[in-house]
Amino acid sequence: MTYCVAICLEEGLVFLSDTRTNAGVDDIGTFRKMTIYKKSDQRIFTLLSAGNLAISQAVKEIIQQGDLFDGVNIWNAKNAYEAALVVGMAIRKVKTRDEKALADAGIDFNCNFIFGGQIFGEKPRLFNIYSAGNFVESTHETCYFQIGEAKYGKPILDRVIKHHTPLDLATKSALISMDSTLKSNISVGLPLDLFVYEAHSYSLNKAITIDESNPYFGMIRKLWGQKLTEIVMSIQEPNWESNPEFLAIMSPPEKIGPITLVENTGPKL
Amino acid sequence: MTYCVAICLEEGLVFLSDTRTNAGVDDIGTFRKMTIYKKSDQRIFTLLSAGNLAISQAVKEIIQQGDLFDGVNIWNAKNAYEAALVVGMAIRKVKTRDEKALADAGIDFNCNFIFGGQIFGEKPRLFNIYSAGNFVESTHETCYFQIGEAKYGKPILDRVIKHHTPLDLATKSALISMDSTLKSNISVGLPLDLFVYEAHSYSLNKAITIDESNPYFGMIRKLWGQKLTEIVMSIQEPNWESNPEFLAIMSPPEKIGPITLVENTGPKL
Repeated sequence: MTYCVAICLEEGLVFLSDTRTNAGVDDIGTFRKMTIYKKSDQRIFTLLSAGNLAISQAVKEIIQQGDLFDGVNIWNAKNAYEAALVVGMAIRKVKTRDEKALADAGIDFNCNFIFGGQIFGEKPRLFNIYSAGNFVESTHETCYFQIGEAKYGKPILDRVIKHHTPLDLATKSALISMDSTLKSNISVGLPLDLFVYEAHSYSLNKAITIDESNPYFGMIRKLWGQKLTEIVMSIQEPNWESNPEFLAIMSPPEKIGPITLVENTGPKL
Repeated sequence: MTYCVAICLEEGLVFLSDTRTNAGVDDIGTFRKMTIYKKSDQRIFTLLSAGNLAISQAVKEIIQQGDLFDGVNIWNAKNAYEAALVVGMAIRKVKTRDEKALADAGIDFNCNFIFGGQIFGEKPRLFNIYSAGNFVESTHETCYFQIGEAKYGKPILDRVIKHHTPLDLATKSALISMDSTLKSNISVGLPLDLFVYEAHSYSLNKAITIDESNPYFGMIRKLWGQKLTEIVMSIQEPNWESNPEFLAIMSPPEKIGPITLVENTGPKL
């Protein structure tokens, strides 16, 4: 499986992906799920992929080959929306070619992409592109997308990420979100690819690969587990005796023949 | 959807379930997913259910009707293992009756149960029962089971729960796990049913229904969100300038025709 997350903020964009692929637990591989497309100081895009690796590799190959419709490719698209359309068209091209053969083999046409970046003259933009080639764009209210094993790492993002969150804080939150996923799901694994894009910079300065030896991520992994346990400890425990509000609210046991059946159908509903 | 969690500890058992069911977002209902079976001070069982509501209601009906095999039912089963077998047999009975009709309608035979409790003379035991009627028992190493929307609330359990964790701390952790799920998934909803069973007590004293007005859960919801944000804040932010270990490790941009394509294939792999 895969876990990828991307966040679109006032200050820029954060992209984070793991590198584990698996076709069954006995077939684990390492493949990059992040591709960065950059054209001098005019445009920069990042593509994160999840799902069937053969499909996502084919999509990337087709994107890199050039025009997808009406002479438009990601290098000449007028805006980021049009560039996302190009990715969608690439997906549809692979779908047209492969879907039937996959279906014959009992395999779904399963792929998901997050695509975002900036074209000179626009703000940074972020899209979640589905396997049908259609897509949605992030907004101020919903400013992050996840693909793959998204659930473990969602609660922390829901708590912290707002559109005005600073880039560094969002980066830290994305890494914590990844850490929660790594801890609970063996199908997501190191190394990670992280790209933090400062709006209008067209710079790759903050694109790194994080493996076991990265001291910052190591610190997060250690501290987060510790502090999480500390706050669970610091929260008051249920005091059943002295807190009548927390005491049992149950209907009395109902006799059914020789046995006692208690159905928990409290009057509070 | 549903989220249910149960934990088997030295001191006893914790069961927690939500009450939301949905058949599409426009068909939301409230159904209890926890049923407690109690026979004086000799045996007590709790059944948590997830999946197709028609199936789980049918299974419960059949369990309550009596003997499932060789004159055995949950009221006379010799031990908790045999009682879990009874639940498994009930599932198979419903499966035999309904699976084909469901398949004809394009519906999977989808149900999951957590079943646990204590019979006099045994320790408390906990089982995860699958839709095929087979089951696994919790162990010292893996002492909790989740069914339904399990992923959001798994990281916190993975951090805190051990077999020797005290009941109160495990209860608090289960409620935090539920809170994370409620926050991130609209298909899981209040009220909650909570049953904390102290080993050898055969008591329902700590069985309650928790709704929006419950002050303890309200406190957890408020404090947990706050403290989680606080620890994210308290962790050092990435300092790209002064920490060379965290700086970009990228292969140099590769020229492809008139455009620059950067593939993030760092040497660290």
